Amino acid sequence: MSASYPVVDIHTHMYPPSYIKLLSSRTTVPYIYQPTEADNSPDSDPRLIILASDDDPSRPKASRGRPVDSTYSSFDQKRSFMKRHGISCSVISLANPWLDFLDPESALETAQGINDDLETACAKNNQSSDHGSLKLYAFGCLPLSAPAKDIVSEIKRLKTLKHVKGVIMGTTGLGKGLDDPDLDEVYSALASTSTLVFLHPHYGLPDSAFGGPEVVARSGHVLPLALGFPLETTIAVARMYLSGVFDRHPKLQFLLAHSGGTIPFLAGRIESCVAHEREFVANGGHRQGPQRSIWDVLHTNIYLDAVIYGQPGLRAALEAAGSVDRIIFGTDHPFFPPLGNEHESRWLSVESNKGAIDGTFPHDEEAKKQILGGNAVRVLGLDI
Amino acid sequence: MSASYPVVDIHTHMYPPSYIKLLSSRTTVPYIYQPTEADNSPDSDPRLIILASDDDPSRPKASRGRPVDSTYSSFDQKRSFMKRHGISCSVISLANPWLDFLDPESALETAQGINDDLETACAKNNQSSDHGSLKLYAFGCLPLSAPAKDIVSEIKRLKTLKHVKGVIMGTTGLGKGLDDPDLDEVYSALASTSTLVFLHPHYGLPDSAFGGPEVVARSGHVLPLALGFPLETTIAVARMYLSGVFDRHPKLQFLLAHSGGTIPFLAGRIESCVAHEREFVANGGHRQGPQRSIWDVLHTNIYLDAVIYGQPGLRAALEAAGSVDRIIFGTDHPFFPPLGNEHESRWLSVESNKGAIDGTFPHDEEAKKQILGGNAVRVLGLDI
Repeated sequence: MSASYPVVDIHTHMYPPSYIKLLSSRTTVPYIYQPTEADNSPDSDPRLIILASDDDPSRPKASRGRPVDSTYSSFDQKRSFMKRHGISCSVISLANPWLDFLDPESALETAQGINDDLETACAKNNQSSDHGSLKLYAFGCLPLSAPAKDIVSEIKRLKTLKHVKGVIMGTTGLGKGLDDPDLDEVYSALASTSTLVFLHPHYGLPDSAFGGPEVVARSGHVLPLALGFPLETTIAVARMYLSGVFDRHPKLQFLLAHSGGTIPFLAGRIESCVAHEREFVANGGHRQGPQRSIWDVLHTNIYLDAVIYGQPGLRAALEAAGSVDRIIFGTDHPFFPPLGNEHESRWLSVESNKGAIDGTFPHDEEAKKQILGGNAVRVLGLDI
Repeated sequence: MSASYPVVDIHTHMYPPSYIKLLSSRTTVPYIYQPTEADNSPDSDPRLIILASDDDPSRPKASRGRPVDSTYSSFDQKRSFMKRHGISCSVISLANPWLDFLDPESALETAQGINDDLETACAKNNQSSDHGSLKLYAFGCLPLSAPAKDIVSEIKRLKTLKHVKGVIMGTTGLGKGLDDPDLDEVYSALASTSTLVFLHPHYGLPDSAFGGPEVVARSGHVLPLALGFPLETTIAVARMYLSGVFDRHPKLQFLLAHSGGTIPFLAGRIESCVAHEREFVANGGHRQGPQRSIWDVLHTNIYLDAVIYGQPGLRAALEAAGSVDRIIFGTDHPFFPPLGNEHESRWLSVESNKGAIDGTFPHDEEAKKQILGGNAVRVLGLDI
């Protein structure tokens, strides 16, 4: 990529040092394991064990999960990745599972600390003349295990941090999913502060959905990552939609990871099943269930990232979004590194997402410009 | 629809009378319950309880599942539906859960009986002058709980039935999924006889994938049908692909229900996760896991029906299939009837699928002709 316009990556994660320290202090998922000599492991990088399925007790700890090298926490390496791929601005977000696992007492303080770290790092980067025109912004994290008033207060405080441009959130909400009525207070705060929510999966599906743990184990991380992640997002968004969250909070703004899981592909089927659901029309006349069409929600409340690795998915995303203005480039860095030498080559994962955009718009520079940067600048109000 | 070319519906189910009798003799899922006066139910139609989630013990039996009226078993009503929607040919298939639940001893004989019934009904229809130009063909069913030799013998016998143009199958195979190595003998027989497999979901996802049975119950059938069904297909096909079924059986021909679940949307992500999977490249050099790209499989081994209820999904299906030649019209009749008066109006479920095709090809009659009928005629060798 060497574009004449800003290229903004809105799906790019970091575990800032304070978060690495937090995970390293833990021994249950999520945690970071530092191999010792006793492990006799060929690789001395710490291991990041973030998925329940990573923590397979039949494997030695030194080979569970994935290696977590400095790519995960180094701002220098983030910038180096950006330069190599022609990315002028990254909106970094804490990677999953964010703060979902914290006890209620420590959650607010931890969230504030991490959000302040992100703000400081972005401010320092953007004010420095050392990094050329590379800019950093961030999505903040929320103390979702804390009492609702603490969550709301952090949502409001984040508006005072100049480089924080929204929040990243998983699919469990306060612990019971995104259709939990207790989230209404949080949704109201998000809507009234015009805070964009970057919704990202983490928990995947239970192993039983894939046929059991032995089936999952046969293909490494492929089933949980390739399917579990997007299907988790799909279910979470469908539950929100069906429970009327977007009816009650018509100003909510969500950015969905991985082009919406599979929502763009299945939106028509969801709409059809709602229209044919006896429970929703049982009382003759007044329809129960969601009042707005899912297309209206997609066109009004939802942005989709372009992390979909192929033209078929991107086509569906564009068509479901109703406009090129709602699709936003991302990389998912530092995940999916090339398995050869991640420090030298251009990343296949980035090239396939970029290639899908180029292939879909071979003769439409304006569309590419919007997806690769213009939309992010406009939607997040980036100063670049 | 009033086209100047054949319109073929390849996704249209029937429970022929012999199958209705079988289900009516059962009291565990799948079964048909005939309400009695004691039920004091406003509706006297029998109830079809086919999904585990339908059989909710907290509800009276007379309100579990869905009403099963004569639409499910009447050839006259099938023809009436066809006429009303301008469909000239239907390739009928037994609806889920087929014969998955039979004990091994009775499975072969039951399959033969039902397949013979389907053949006879189609032959009688096509020879009669009473039905104008309306033609019927069928997908047969397999005795998958029987020993492999019985399954193979029925696959071979079906080739002698002139109106049977393939088989319909669920995602459990012999009970352990479609990546079960014990299926290789069956796949060999399907490939060597050039038998098209119509793959259709039934089991959905476990309730826990949606957040538990209470979450599912809040939206009637929407979560199991709108998401559970296509996600089941997605997982089943991904497991087949990852286990190398299409490497070992490069001539297999599958038709995937509901435009492939979500495979078209997620194919790029699956491909990317395979390319980035450490387990598959662990032994340096020779890649483990699937040898063919998922795009090659989609372009060679897979057809997709067009039962996707919207343009975004259809776009992805077309793009993933690589050609308009691999997308085939269907209706899913008699499911998703209009909730008002199903005997008079045109069905919304049909119109939305037809509308997606029209909307995608507003000026391309040739593409519409292929999707609506030409592809089915060519792929199945229909004599119409």
